[in-house]
Amino acid sequence: MIVVVLTNTIVTPWEVKGNIDYDKLIKEFGVSKLDDKLLKKLESHTGELHHFLKRGVFFAHRDLEFALKEYEKGKNLFLYTGCGPSGPIHMGHAMIWMFTKWLQEKLDVELYFQFTDDEKFMLKKDRSYEDIQKCLYDNMLDVIALGFDPKKTHFLVDTKHANIMYPEAIKVAKKITFSTVKSVFGFKNDTNIGMIFFTSMQAVPAFLPSVIKKKKMACLIPHAIDQDPHFRISRDVIPKLGYPKPASIQSRFLPGLAGMAEEGKLSSSTGVAIYLTDDPKTVKNKINKHAFSGGRETVEEHRKLGGNPDIDVSYQWLSFFEEDEDKLTKIYDDYKSGKLLSGELKQILIDKLNLFLVDHQKKREEAKNRIDDFMFKY
Amino acid sequence: MIVVVLTNTIVTPWEVKGNIDYDKLIKEFGVSKLDDKLLKKLESHTGELHHFLKRGVFFAHRDLEFALKEYEKGKNLFLYTGCGPSGPIHMGHAMIWMFTKWLQEKLDVELYFQFTDDEKFMLKKDRSYEDIQKCLYDNMLDVIALGFDPKKTHFLVDTKHANIMYPEAIKVAKKITFSTVKSVFGFKNDTNIGMIFFTSMQAVPAFLPSVIKKKKMACLIPHAIDQDPHFRISRDVIPKLGYPKPASIQSRFLPGLAGMAEEGKLSSSTGVAIYLTDDPKTVKNKINKHAFSGGRETVEEHRKLGGNPDIDVSYQWLSFFEEDEDKLTKIYDDYKSGKLLSGELKQILIDKLNLFLVDHQKKREEAKNRIDDFMFKY
Repeated sequence: MIVVVLTNTIVTPWEVKGNIDYDKLIKEFGVSKLDDKLLKKLESHTGELHHFLKRGVFFAHRDLEFALKEYEKGKNLFLYTGCGPSGPIHMGHAMIWMFTKWLQEKLDVELYFQFTDDEKFMLKKDRSYEDIQKCLYDNMLDVIALGFDPKKTHFLVDTKHANIMYPEAIKVAKKITFSTVKSVFGFKNDTNIGMIFFTSMQAVPAFLPSVIKKKKMACLIPHAIDQDPHFRISRDVIPKLGYPKPASIQSRFLPGLAGMAEEGKLSSSTGVAIYLTDDPKTVKNKINKHAFSGGRETVEEHRKLGGNPDIDVSYQWLSFFEEDEDKLTKIYDDYKSGKLLSGELKQILIDKLNLFLVDHQKKREEAKNRIDDFMFKY
Repeated sequence: MIVVVLTNTIVTPWEVKGNIDYDKLIKEFGVSKLDDKLLKKLESHTGELHHFLKRGVFFAHRDLEFALKEYEKGKNLFLYTGCGPSGPIHMGHAMIWMFTKWLQEKLDVELYFQFTDDEKFMLKKDRSYEDIQKCLYDNMLDVIALGFDPKKTHFLVDTKHANIMYPEAIKVAKKITFSTVKSVFGFKNDTNIGMIFFTSMQAVPAFLPSVIKKKKMACLIPHAIDQDPHFRISRDVIPKLGYPKPASIQSRFLPGLAGMAEEGKLSSSTGVAIYLTDDPKTVKNKINKHAFSGGRETVEEHRKLGGNPDIDVSYQWLSFFEEDEDKLTKIYDDYKSGKLLSGELKQILIDKLNLFLVDHQKKREEAKNRIDDFMFKY
C-alpha cells in the first residue's frame, strides 16, 4: 500500500491525517508542482486565475501540459470529477466542485460527474443499499445547486449507468491484477471482491467520452490529492486500451475544524463537518464550538501579543473561501496584530459560509426537479 | 482451491480431466445423489423421466427436494442456466440445454439464461472484446435453435443487462472476501480483478426473478458438476440477501472424443469437439478419425472376441444421445458380441448426430431474426 507517512501523517483514499508537508507529498506521490509557467498557460485560456490556483489550494498535477495542448486543438478535452455518496456533502467536497465548475465555465468543456454509489455501498459494512441510494439523491441535489451547466454536465451513476460502464470496466479490470490493487490500496485477503474490482469502474469516466465520440479525447480530473492512487492505476491502464492517459489537477485538503494535526482533512467520519445543508445557527454553533483557534488565552493577552492565523482553522478556511485577496490579507494582519479577536474572526467565517449556504440551499430545493437534466443519456 | 483430485483426475470450473469416479465426486463436492425416491417425485410432476435421468447423466443435486416443494406451491420455481461465449457450441454444452429445455417444457416454468461474456473476455488473455461479442451472437443462435419457449425464456447478457445485474452483483460481492474466491477457485495474486469479482455476476440470475417479482422464488440450476464451485458461493451468500438458496441438478461430463482418461470432458481447448455448426462430412471425419474405439485390432479378432463398449467413446456418446433404451441395449450387446464392428458403431453415432445437427442448423438460421424475442426486458 502506498501510504505517505511523513511524521505522524497518513494520506490514503480513505484517510488523511496529520500536518501535511505538501512538498514532500509531491515527491512521494510522484506528481508535479503547479508552477508559474503552467499557471500562466492555463490563464491564457481561462482569462483569469481562480484564487484556489493563486493560493496553492490546487497545487499539483499530472500531465496538465498535455491536457492544455489537447484543449488548444479545438477543445479536445473534457473534465471528470466525482462524488462518493455516503453522507451529506460538506465544504471539503464542495470546494473541489466549485473549482471544477469554474474550470468548466472558463474552458467551456463538458464535464462527466461520476457518483460511485457502488463503492460506498461495498466499503461501508453497516450501510444498506437503500441508504446509499438516499445519499446519492441528496448529493446530486448539492452538485446541481453548485451551478453546473446541465447542457455540458453529465452525471454517471455507477449503478444506473452500468450498461455503458460495466462493459468498459471489464476491459480495465482485465489489465489489473490483485497484486496491483493490493499494493496501491493495501487490500487484504478479507477485502470484499467488490472493492477489489471497483477501481475499474472509477477508471471508466476518464475514457468513456472517447469511446462514445469515437475520437481520442484528453481528460482532466480535478480532485483532492488523496484520490491519486485510483488515477495512478487508471493512468497505467487506459493507454493500454488505446486512449490518452488522463491528466489531473490536485488540491490540498480543507482542514477539519480541529485542525489538520488533530483531526486531518475535513471528514464526516473523523470530526464535525460543515454540511451544505446546515442552517445558519448550526454553522455558527459548529464554528464557535469546534474551530481550533490561534488566539490567546485572554482578550487582554490577545490584544497585546496578537493571535496566530497560521494555526487558526477559521483563518485557514477563509483562505479557501474568501475570494478577495485584500480582505484576506487584512484579516491576517489584524488577527496577527491582535486587532481582530478570535470571536470576531470566527464571525467573519460564519457570515461568509452562511451567505453561501443560504443561497445554495435555495438552489438545492430547485434542483429537485432538475436531476433528469443532468443524467447522462446514451 | 477445491480441486477434486481422484487418481489423475482434475475437476474445476475450467478444467476436467481423467476418469471420474462420480461417487467419490459426490462425496468430495458434498452434493447429493439423485436417488429413486427423488426421481419419482420429479416424475410425478414431469409425467416421465428424461433418459438423462434414467441413465444417470444427471446424477447429483443440491436441494432438489426444496425446489420441488416450492414448485408444488403454485409453480414457485424458475430455472437458471447459462453459457460462457468463447467459441462455437459443442455437444457437451448442448446436452445441458437439451435437458433444461425438457425441464422447462415439462414443468412449464420460466428460464433465465445467462451469457457470461464478461467472464470469458476477462479469462482469455488473447481474446478481444469484439471477438467474444461475435461468439455471444453465434451462441445465442444455437441456444434459440434448441427450441426454448421465447415467452418463458429470458436471456441475461452480463454486458447488456448490467443496469439490472450490476446493482445486485455488488450486494453479493460485498459478502464475499478474496480469501473465499482464492480457496474456491484457486485465484492468485496475478489473477485479474475482473475474474475475482465475476462470481458475483454469476450469482445474480439465481435470485434476480425474486427481486423483479418481489416474492421469494426457488431457483433450480441444471449444470455440469464442474460449475458447482460458483454455486457453492452463491448458495452461501444468497440467503444472506434474503432469497432462497438456489438448488441445482448436476450432470456428468460428455467425454472428449479421445475419452475421459486421455482428454477429459469434451472441450474445444483440449481436443476435437463436435460443434453444432459442423456439417455432416465434418462430423463423419471427426468421429471416424478421433473417437476412441473399444474395438479389436483386426476384424477377425473383433468378430471372435467382441469389442468393449464400456471404453468406446462412440458408444458412450450414444448413451447420451440415443433416447431409445432398446436400441441402445442392442448396440451394446452387438458390439460386445462382435456382431457390430467399430466402423459400424461409429456410423450409428454419425447418423444420429447428423440427423440432429442438420435440423438444428436449419433452426439456427431462423433464429437470426428471433434474438430480440429472447432478450430479457425490464
